[in-house]
Amino acid sequence: MKLCVIAGDGIGREVVPQALRVLQLLLPGLQTVAADAGWDTFRQHGTALSAATLAVARDCGAVIFGAVSSPAHQVAGYRSPIVQLRRELGCHANLRPTLSLPGCGAAGIDLLIVRENTEDLYIGEEQSDGDTATAIKRITRAASQRVAQTACQLAVAAGRRRLTIVHKANILPLTDGLFRDAARQVAAGYPQLAVDELLVDTAALKLAQAPQDFDVLLAPNLYGDILSDLAAACGGGLGVAASLNLGADAAIAEPVHGSAPDIAGQGIANPVASLLSLAMLLRHWWRLPELAARLEQAVRATLAAGTRTPDLGGTAGTAGFCDAVIGRL
Amino acid sequence: MKLCVIAGDGIGREVVPQALRVLQLLLPGLQTVAADAGWDTFRQHGTALSAATLAVARDCGAVIFGAVSSPAHQVAGYRSPIVQLRRELGCHANLRPTLSLPGCGAAGIDLLIVRENTEDLYIGEEQSDGDTATAIKRITRAASQRVAQTACQLAVAAGRRRLTIVHKANILPLTDGLFRDAARQVAAGYPQLAVDELLVDTAALKLAQAPQDFDVLLAPNLYGDILSDLAAACGGGLGVAASLNLGADAAIAEPVHGSAPDIAGQGIANPVASLLSLAMLLRHWWRLPELAARLEQAVRATLAAGTRTPDLGGTAGTAGFCDAVIGRL
Ligand SMILES: CC(C)[C@H](C(=O)O)[C@@H](O)C(=O)O
Ligand SMILES: CC(C)[C@H](C(=O)O)[C@@H](O)C(=O)O
Repeated sequence: MKLCVIAGDGIGREVVPQALRVLQLLLPGLQTVAADAGWDTFRQHGTALSAATLAVARDCGAVIFGAVSSPAHQVAGYRSPIVQLRRELGCHANLRPTLSLPGCGAAGIDLLIVRENTEDLYIGEEQSDGDTATAIKRITRAASQRVAQTACQLAVAAGRRRLTIVHKANILPLTDGLFRDAARQVAAGYPQLAVDELLVDTAALKLAQAPQDFDVLLAPNLYGDILSDLAAACGGGLGVAASLNLGADAAIAEPVHGSAPDIAGQGIANPVASLLSLAMLLRHWWRLPELAARLEQAVRATLAAGTRTPDLGGTAGTAGFCDAVIGRL
Repeated sequence: MKLCVIAGDGIGREVVPQALRVLQLLLPGLQTVAADAGWDTFRQHGTALSAATLAVARDCGAVIFGAVSSPAHQVAGYRSPIVQLRRELGCHANLRPTLSLPGCGAAGIDLLIVRENTEDLYIGEEQSDGDTATAIKRITRAASQRVAQTACQLAVAAGRRRLTIVHKANILPLTDGLFRDAARQVAAGYPQLAVDELLVDTAALKLAQAPQDFDVLLAPNLYGDILSDLAAACGGGLGVAASLNLGADAAIAEPVHGSAPDIAGQGIANPVASLLSLAMLLRHWWRLPELAARLEQAVRATLAAGTRTPDLGGTAGTAGFCDAVIGRL
């Protein structure tokens, strides 16, 4: 068992090593291979994601990606390494759960956003003459079906009941309409699931009003990006927002938060998002649901006992929180 | 003074006539001209927005647009009449305020979303071969500057202090980068305003967490659509969410809600969104700020007195609410 470890920039370098300490107790045989990516890498080597890092990631299959900083303005040659990694590794689905945790955000939330992870406006096809710029939003039936399949399978496996397809087909009948229709067609093969749909603006409104009402949301890339941050806000913030980028040949555990330069270097970043992302890797990639549940339970118990980092109003540091989790494994 | 009245479908036909009763007391000389648009119009005449309606709207300059139903799936020839109307009338900016009202949503919110209203993914340039579909997102410097100018002028006129530019330039450096840069350049001419920027996903997160922290948000069309529904959720819901589509030659008052087929015909739809949209028309189009303030005050006083429609937990009907507002004018 191998794990490619890309800590990245800022707090990525704090939360990832600490979360790994916990994982290594659960998986003593785990071999980790460190690799670089991000803004520091770009400044040193002219690329934010090198061929060497990509090769390690491919070889390992399993990856943890901490967080990277990105330039405030366009820098020639810079491309987001996580977006490249998702595409290069064929991680077609981005799973972003929001689950109420003890003392974090609203109670009663247990939703999963499944975000298409390879196309939409993320394909990087843009042009500009300086006064007029265009970008291509591309939606394919194949990618829409694939992510819908993953969403339905995961939903059924987890005993979930409802799938809500998010789109803006009233304005984008061909692209978002294709996404919606492909998803509906796939979902029709899962009679256990009640299927409905929402316009993305209405989905934002309803998520903000009653996140407890949702079960599984399936969305194209960009809407998934926006709605998952919104869902994170309902569920205790980015410090606890976990995600897994999942494909047939690789999976990337990715805390949703960024590199947080404002608190980097202080040892106070919240490791929960990384810990819960690793739990998703245990469950969905290594297919070790018991270990995943053990890790999740230990995190919940630690939070329930009042051990919390400052973003949740506590005084624990990153290492201290992980020590407490280890004590409850 | 003329007003083109497009009630539309569903509750549009209930809230618009009632809100007009109130407006006509404030503007006894107002001449109203009814015009058709929407789904019923499409089914009868094969177009959701006829040339005749467009001519009336152009002639009047001022328009109230209630709400229209749209088909659940693509219907050949159907195009959203409000999107067409915004573009045809040159209403380049969509002003969507969220202001805490007595007993509605969270307290302390007073923000304004200024949404670019003519381009982005709303230009209707899509193609599909059935398996791959593309849509063009177009951003121009001219439209970005124009809406930024409007946002800055309105902000300064209202004594506002901060402008937050929303974009996703980390993924879309050319299109959203152009929007951001054009907006920054315009905003630099307004030293009274503190200017910052947020990625659209982060903006969604922060709006959900602390809507009170925002002042003016400036966003491209689609992000403005999503974020304004989210802001509405923070501020009492769609029943009270007002908007004004503003251009040099025309302005369209538009409650943000839809035609609400579930409650249509019962006389219980909330007229507040329409009343406050008309107040925006009074202030920004007819330049009658005293009358606008009188209307807004009467609406606030009515809500404060506990008169509310069922969406806000009350028992008032559409007409009864408007009677109460009239009693407080
Ligand atoms: C950093 C950025 C490229 C990324 C995205 O847009 O996917 C992030 O917002 C996320 O949600 O993982
Ligand atoms: C009905 C729809 C076309 C419209 C939009 O997307 O602009 C609506 O959502 C709005 O916000 O006014």
